Amino acid sequence: MYKPKIGIVGYGRVGKGAELAVQSFTDMELVGIFTRRDPSTVETLTGVEVYSVDELEDGGWDIDVLLLCGGSRTDLPEQTKKYAQWYNVIDSYDQHDTINEHYHEVDDVACDEGTLAIVSVGWDPGLFSKMRALNCAIFAAEVFLHTSWGDGLSQGHSDAIRQIDGVVDARQYTKPIKEAIARIRSDEKVQLATYKTHTRECFVVAEEGADLARIEQEIKTMKNYFVNYETTVHFVTQEELNEQHNRVDHRGFVHGKAWTGVEHEHKHVLEYNLDTDCNAELTGCIMAAYARAAYRHYDEMGDCGCLTALNIPDADLLPLDMTDDEIRTACL
Amino acid sequence: MYKPKIGIVGYGRVGKGAELAVQSFTDMELVGIFTRRDPSTVETLTGVEVYSVDELEDGGWDIDVLLLCGGSRTDLPEQTKKYAQWYNVIDSYDQHDTINEHYHEVDDVACDEGTLAIVSVGWDPGLFSKMRALNCAIFAAEVFLHTSWGDGLSQGHSDAIRQIDGVVDARQYTKPIKEAIARIRSDEKVQLATYKTHTRECFVVAEEGADLARIEQEIKTMKNYFVNYETTVHFVTQEELNEQHNRVDHRGFVHGKAWTGVEHEHKHVLEYNLDTDCNAELTGCIMAAYARAAYRHYDEMGDCGCLTALNIPDADLLPLDMTDDEIRTACL
Repeated sequence: MYKPKIGIVGYGRVGKGAELAVQSFTDMELVGIFTRRDPSTVETLTGVEVYSVDELEDGGWDIDVLLLCGGSRTDLPEQTKKYAQWYNVIDSYDQHDTINEHYHEVDDVACDEGTLAIVSVGWDPGLFSKMRALNCAIFAAEVFLHTSWGDGLSQGHSDAIRQIDGVVDARQYTKPIKEAIARIRSDEKVQLATYKTHTRECFVVAEEGADLARIEQEIKTMKNYFVNYETTVHFVTQEELNEQHNRVDHRGFVHGKAWTGVEHEHKHVLEYNLDTDCNAELTGCIMAAYARAAYRHYDEMGDCGCLTALNIPDADLLPLDMTDDEIRTACL
Repeated sequence: MYKPKIGIVGYGRVGKGAELAVQSFTDMELVGIFTRRDPSTVETLTGVEVYSVDELEDGGWDIDVLLLCGGSRTDLPEQTKKYAQWYNVIDSYDQHDTINEHYHEVDDVACDEGTLAIVSVGWDPGLFSKMRALNCAIFAAEVFLHTSWGDGLSQGHSDAIRQIDGVVDARQYTKPIKEAIARIRSDEKVQLATYKTHTRECFVVAEEGADLARIEQEIKTMKNYFVNYETTVHFVTQEELNEQHNRVDHRGFVHGKAWTGVEHEHKHVLEYNLDTDCNAELTGCIMAAYARAAYRHYDEMGDCGCLTALNIPDADLLPLDMTDDEIRTACL
């Protein structure tokens, strides 16, 4: 059986998680890590070769799927459409409010160049998106649908704080509010805004002499990120941040409840729960599974353009050496 | 927008659930209920027309998708391949050990006749199959994957008891074993057989003068159904069965745990939990959502043959009047 050749772009936490995942998948082959750093300075977890990202230019590498493991804020908006010119790509773009813009930019390039991209593949967006779709599909009328994150570190919110003048470094924990979660899981017909179900706790390293009151105010009033949320800000030293706020675990759930019946007397609850000791390694596993789908859709079905987790049948994520009968026996 | 025309075959519990679901979906139109009984004796929950199943013969009806709501033991093995000659069909065939046989029989007919079938669509098989596939796809190495059912009434096991000589009627409850479920959810690397995680409780109405000890023995030693399980059998009167063992609620979960990391030090848990007050109404909702997928795959993509839940992208289950951008905004 042919084993698709996989490349990984970016060697931060998610890149390392993707490396471990691809190396553990016996139906694909890891070609190498591609980094913006000097490759000679990078040692990999599994001993796989490291190359400069510059080598990927113009599509010269024989690679079936590239896993793009950069950040959503500045890396992926540039990288995904760039590498989609030459390769099939997977990314884990997670800025929910701009996914459609990202999607269309990547789709334009992939359609023009005849490549295949699957974007926003991780646990949220990704697996959680699938769960939201299932609830919306099954329950026509009122479905009460909530997503909860945490407690765990939010990369996007941490990044956003770091952009504030006078901030050297920051970490932000998202925490579900117990009482709100109890209401979500109760019989109450309630739809709560995200800021009513979570608090945000920030640990911030400020420049010497910076105006801490202003920084705190800027965080708490930041649109789309912190405004309306119950937010607490703690100023700490870089050492304290590095030592005490380096958590990589995360958790969350998608909860749907709906009522059916002549008198709407029957309640149904579907809840998908996730708990991970290592966010980045889980994301790497999910991206590697979607690489199978990218290979199948491009090589076997001749698809091109941009897709998301919502466009991929679950069977296409399964090992490439499983037959259809084996898939039905194992999973149905 | 064109609204696909839906027909329902069979008017038991699932048929009624499907009726309520289709009537609540504003993007489809319910044409009628088709029954083996005398249509004039059947009153529907929503006032929709009732016809004889005989009218469906030879494909004379203008129907886009038929929802087949018969039982898996005797109805669906005949009905699905029969109606797939003339119509696109959905069924909820749930005999796990013979799904591949059922699949191939239906696929042969649907491919020959150019129709589309989606089989084994419900919560298990169906939604739970998707969750099992996700776990198998994401975690390459050891994934500890368990499905738990109950407590709730098992239609298949109740049917099986009714086949025993001397049995007039029966209901079987499947119950998870607390200690086993705790092990599944613990850090233990354990893979338990289904009979180690569930007990089976049977309520049986016997014929007058029947040999109760023999019936109990036959139940407890029935291959594939009860052997190995901790099974209890209670003999009751028909009145007691009707009054006290008429539960329609059910629950269950799919639990996956796996470890990643250089030293396999990071645990990941994905658990999908379902709790329904009305099993049949939930099944009806799921079947109605898959009717959208059948319509899309047949009318828009020109597909034919047999599919299962594992072959359908989640986006294809969503309301037909949602645009792709709206789907991404709502669900991603």
